[in-house]
Amino acid sequence: MTLSHQHRTEDCRAVSDVLSRIGDKWTVLVVEFLGGGPLRFNELRKMIGNISQKMLTTTLRGLERDGFVTRTVYPTIPPRVDYELTDLGRDLLVPVRALGEWARQNAGRINAARAKFDKISEAA
Amino acid sequence: MTLSHQHRTEDCRAVSDVLSRIGDKWTVLVVEFLGGGPLRFNELRKMIGNISQKMLTTTLRGLERDGFVTRTVYPTIPPRVDYELTDLGRDLLVPVRALGEWARQNAGRINAARAKFDKISEAA
Repeated sequence: MTLSHQHRTEDCRAVSDVLSRIGDKWTVLVVEFLGGGPLRFNELRKMIGNISQKMLTTTLRGLERDGFVTRTVYPTIPPRVDYELTDLGRDLLVPVRALGEWARQNAGRINAARAKFDKISEAA
Repeated sequence: MTLSHQHRTEDCRAVSDVLSRIGDKWTVLVVEFLGGGPLRFNELRKMIGNISQKMLTTTLRGLERDGFVTRTVYPTIPPRVDYELTDLGRDLLVPVRALGEWARQNAGRINAARAKFDKISEAA
């Protein structure tokens, strides 16, 4: 192991921790939707479409724990619950959107690589 | 659902697909280590430390399938197998390192948010 490799390991773990956290599709979708402004639980659920109530609750709770999202309960009947990005959550949008831009630009290359790989694997 | 939200959904899915793919800690570590140049399987394994042979094989196969890594077998005894980032893999390093930079700069804020959240949850 070279010295530069050793130095990079700590950084890698910080990256991988954040990526593991935000790297599930629901988390990214929720953060992106909340990038447009605060939303109620049911608004978010309708926008995402095929997410269960339990999964959305879990996703939001994880984002709240990490300090990316705030949860505000209004004492109406029935109670209204709003979710909103924090300053940290809005900060996170910047590199996430940069990665998103990369993903959009390179999705074709990734899909082509996959198709080629699968064709070779089938032939083998 | 607003129009801007609808437009964003396709982008979100492209992002989340890429994030899901690279968002496990092994994948990020492997891509980062290979950023320093080609490595043999056993060199990679030693650098990462606590990864099983099976998990490293699975991780590398996924990266190869997506077109981020090439695998070259040299017919020595025992066979030598080198892994190297492709042009696409090196491209990917750019946004991944940007996110990594963000992660390093904000790890303290995330950890503080978690500690606060857990303290409140315990008290409740």
